Amino acid sequence: MPKKRVVIVGGVAGGATCAARLRRLDEQAEILLFDRGPYVSFANCGLPYYVGNVIRDEEKLLQATPALFKDRFNIEVRTQSEVLSINREARNITVRDIMKGREYTEPYDELVLSPGAAPIRPKWPGAHLPGIFTLRTIPDSREIREWIDSRNPRKAVIVGGGFIGLEMAENLIHRGIAVTIVEMANQLMPPLDREMAEYARLHLIAHKVRLSLGDGVTGFESSANGGLIVHTQAKAVFEADLVVLAIGVRPETGLARNAGLEIGERGGIRVDKTMRTSDPHIWAIGDAVEVKGRMSGEFELIPLARPANNQARIAADAICGRDVQYRGVLGTAVCGFFGLTAAMTGATEKALRRAGTVDFEVVYLHPTQHVTYYPGAHPIHLKLLFRKPDGLVLGAQAIGEAGVARRVDVIATAIQMGATVFDLEDAELCYAPQYGAAKDPVNLAGMIAANVLRGDVELAPWDKLNSRQALLLDVREVHEHHTDAIPGSRNIPLAQLRSRLNELPRSGEIWINCGIGQRSYYACRILRQNGFRARNLSGGAQTYKVLYPLQ
Amino acid sequence: MPKKRVVIVGGVAGGATCAARLRRLDEQAEILLFDRGPYVSFANCGLPYYVGNVIRDEEKLLQATPALFKDRFNIEVRTQSEVLSINREARNITVRDIMKGREYTEPYDELVLSPGAAPIRPKWPGAHLPGIFTLRTIPDSREIREWIDSRNPRKAVIVGGGFIGLEMAENLIHRGIAVTIVEMANQLMPPLDREMAEYARLHLIAHKVRLSLGDGVTGFESSANGGLIVHTQAKAVFEADLVVLAIGVRPETGLARNAGLEIGERGGIRVDKTMRTSDPHIWAIGDAVEVKGRMSGEFELIPLARPANNQARIAADAICGRDVQYRGVLGTAVCGFFGLTAAMTGATEKALRRAGTVDFEVVYLHPTQHVTYYPGAHPIHLKLLFRKPDGLVLGAQAIGEAGVARRVDVIATAIQMGATVFDLEDAELCYAPQYGAAKDPVNLAGMIAANVLRGDVELAPWDKLNSRQALLLDVREVHEHHTDAIPGSRNIPLAQLRSRLNELPRSGEIWINCGIGQRSYYACRILRQNGFRARNLSGGAQTYKVLYPLQ
Repeated sequence: MPKKRVVIVGGVAGGATCAARLRRLDEQAEILLFDRGPYVSFANCGLPYYVGNVIRDEEKLLQATPALFKDRFNIEVRTQSEVLSINREARNITVRDIMKGREYTEPYDELVLSPGAAPIRPKWPGAHLPGIFTLRTIPDSREIREWIDSRNPRKAVIVGGGFIGLEMAENLIHRGIAVTIVEMANQLMPPLDREMAEYARLHLIAHKVRLSLGDGVTGFESSANGGLIVHTQAKAVFEADLVVLAIGVRPETGLARNAGLEIGERGGIRVDKTMRTSDPHIWAIGDAVEVKGRMSGEFELIPLARPANNQARIAADAICGRDVQYRGVLGTAVCGFFGLTAAMTGATEKALRRAGTVDFEVVYLHPTQHVTYYPGAHPIHLKLLFRKPDGLVLGAQAIGEAGVARRVDVIATAIQMGATVFDLEDAELCYAPQYGAAKDPVNLAGMIAANVLRGDVELAPWDKLNSRQALLLDVREVHEHHTDAIPGSRNIPLAQLRSRLNELPRSGEIWINCGIGQRSYYACRILRQNGFRARNLSGGAQTYKVLYPLQ
Repeated sequence: MPKKRVVIVGGVAGGATCAARLRRLDEQAEILLFDRGPYVSFANCGLPYYVGNVIRDEEKLLQATPALFKDRFNIEVRTQSEVLSINREARNITVRDIMKGREYTEPYDELVLSPGAAPIRPKWPGAHLPGIFTLRTIPDSREIREWIDSRNPRKAVIVGGGFIGLEMAENLIHRGIAVTIVEMANQLMPPLDREMAEYARLHLIAHKVRLSLGDGVTGFESSANGGLIVHTQAKAVFEADLVVLAIGVRPETGLARNAGLEIGERGGIRVDKTMRTSDPHIWAIGDAVEVKGRMSGEFELIPLARPANNQARIAADAICGRDVQYRGVLGTAVCGFFGLTAAMTGATEKALRRAGTVDFEVVYLHPTQHVTYYPGAHPIHLKLLFRKPDGLVLGAQAIGEAGVARRVDVIATAIQMGATVFDLEDAELCYAPQYGAAKDPVNLAGMIAANVLRGDVELAPWDKLNSRQALLLDVREVHEHHTDAIPGSRNIPLAQLRSRLNELPRSGEIWINCGIGQRSYYACRILRQNGFRARNLSGGAQTYKVLYPLQ
């Protein structure tokens, strides 16, 4: 067989991984990797931390150099080389050598597109003023660092309250800069369900980040003192010495579109399960492609490193004739800011409601990451989504100061394997006092959900709280009820409940809350077995705290 | 239906959980809980940390009081009440009120035995001298605390290097006491495979714990200065002001044996999948029972809180007529000491070799818990066991300073769901620079194993290293090879390998190592595709470091 010539466009996460995997599978292939920028295989997820000087050494961001690719993998890397077009019939690409200004063509047998996604930079007035940055590349982050080092900015506005926006907020505050986040949506972290994102909002406020949610930027102008002024739809005005646009990313599909490759409804390159595009010799991976959500069943744009890496491996295997299939994406994601971790996997409630195809239920819980008797216990606010009536785990979101990624990883693995809430209930996870509990948060989530499916408890619908006909019963101690009662709730402490059943109505429903949903579950069991129609407000006062501001 | 009367013997983890679950399922049942000790539902896993004053407040160890059981669950708890015998025909038990010295009988419809396991205290000469302690109860830990507070001991000997022994070592050193561990086995942490326990040994030595492995205690005597002298089989002598016996536990089966209940070959109470003993009205749970290992298929004694808790729930459900089955135990366990975490799940290599029924393979790896470019990366030493040829995940052990429990929990969940190494390879776990990597340690473990099963690489058998016929090739850089070469290995850096193939033998095997097994894998791929017979030494020099002392 003649040597195969594989050309890869884009050398960051997906492209570099694909190239290395190709070499391991085919020692004879000729492999060329092109990147428009000056670096390949750099750690783009680390850029906010380089801006924040948490990562101090720029070289640490370079995971592999062209020389290493040559030495270790016999792969030719051409940086500062922009691929301008694809000639599918001739199977070649036209490349521009940015430094030399020269254009040339390179033939391919197989072409892999890994162009990534570009930060969105709307055409707002003033969007290109000095001091307004996006963050995608090492040079981008170097520019922001230099701006900070030379100008000593005191105030920054971050446009966009997503994962990158929050990471940037932490890092700019770490550099001593006051931060305002302006987010057009009515919540931070738009991939999360809104009430879970509320914990992030409370945490950011506690860390002195100024927030403006539900308000979009309309433009920028220079101020008299040499700074910037940010204008919003709500006519708010923010002063800033530095602006970071972290609005999101858009798949880089220009090359694919111009070559006539199929683009999906979400705007990403459409690929099959082997990452092959509509052209049998062109493959695409990473942030530029649309992939099927495993739980949603819909095409999604998931600009994350883990899926890109997985797709890169699938594409390389497929190109080498192996029988592989990409299983789709769970969307497992994590973000840390000011000591808090927010993580998610699988489907969110809003995605399930949008799709409208699955009958599902939601439970909230607030366990600590390890037993409370060991010092340092912190709550994990956890939301679990599962299918009715079989209990298939659909998704989870968690937020807290410790142990969050661990529980979301366990649930991600469970979802991947098609687990039900009954499996979560039975899971046998690491327990010692510093590490967890005999009933791990994952077990508790499974138990609470399984209790619902078995009919041992019915959940009260939180979204009907304000329009309820039911009696609202708080079974906490009197002093707890005094502290933060849900308005209109009546208090009978759990310990008195059995002896005060005659005070409760036999007609109509009784919705029960406590602090986190445990005592109210016990109360539900007592009332149901005594013939009352009781429902549990899952997550109790802790959940009320984040749900109420939204109602 | 008449009220059911359920009597539970033993009120710590399993008994208390079972009682509370019974009440939730049956509001009408009469539930009585007996315990010999002064407390119920106390946090026995926290006792070493109470000794170490990490947990300062004894009350924190009390998770529930008899009053709470009465108020919340309408359960009658009788502490200081020893159950002396079971009359199976009459369905009653004889109880001794320890404080009043009075004996009486109590009838039951269903009886649950949750007696736990007692620390082993061999009949060594002097084993009952003052200053020699075991640790099972709050009074035990209080006695040790009082001994420390009043005697100010400077040297302690811990007999037994298992999980409790290591936790005690950490806590005694935390109290300023020099610690020697005497362990009869030739390794610490006997549940782990020996080479994985070697990391624990190195870590303890670094933290100034004196170790005497492979030597059993023969007895104790008082020393002239009022201390203790510990004698061993190897005629070693250790002075101590305090001795803790942490040799292991033995299931408390006296009551069950005397009642003629079936006892299994491992010495635990034999139960069926609903936790029912050989008597249809008697159930048993927790440390006193034998349970089937999910991966080993054999009966095992697993004195851990999570399985006890799970079994308690199963027994309660079964007693209430629910259709439930205990799925068996994975043996997931974790232990922390001096900032190191060791965790395991599923089958160990020694268990699989002992059983001899499964064709399996082992891979080692040493990834960091998160990307190395983010500050604070620490290696996780990971061993994965999987079945050939289908790749079913059989077990894992991990040890390191961060992220260990998380990865073992993920693998435990995977094992529970019947995952293969191909599933681990595909797992989509939380990644951001502080949390992991685009290829998580779990992914890497899966990839390395999958590479073996797909025939992309063959593993060299570490245990044949010293008797090898093969050429040993180290593909690290020259300076790395100089630092810690495996004796007899030849060095060709990976970057030079393709141009120096003519230096390698075409006949015979070439076993390749590097630092952790990654570059050697690349080298294997190069050599195999060039017609050489290459094998990878999984885990590289890092694995050699712990395997070599054992050979």
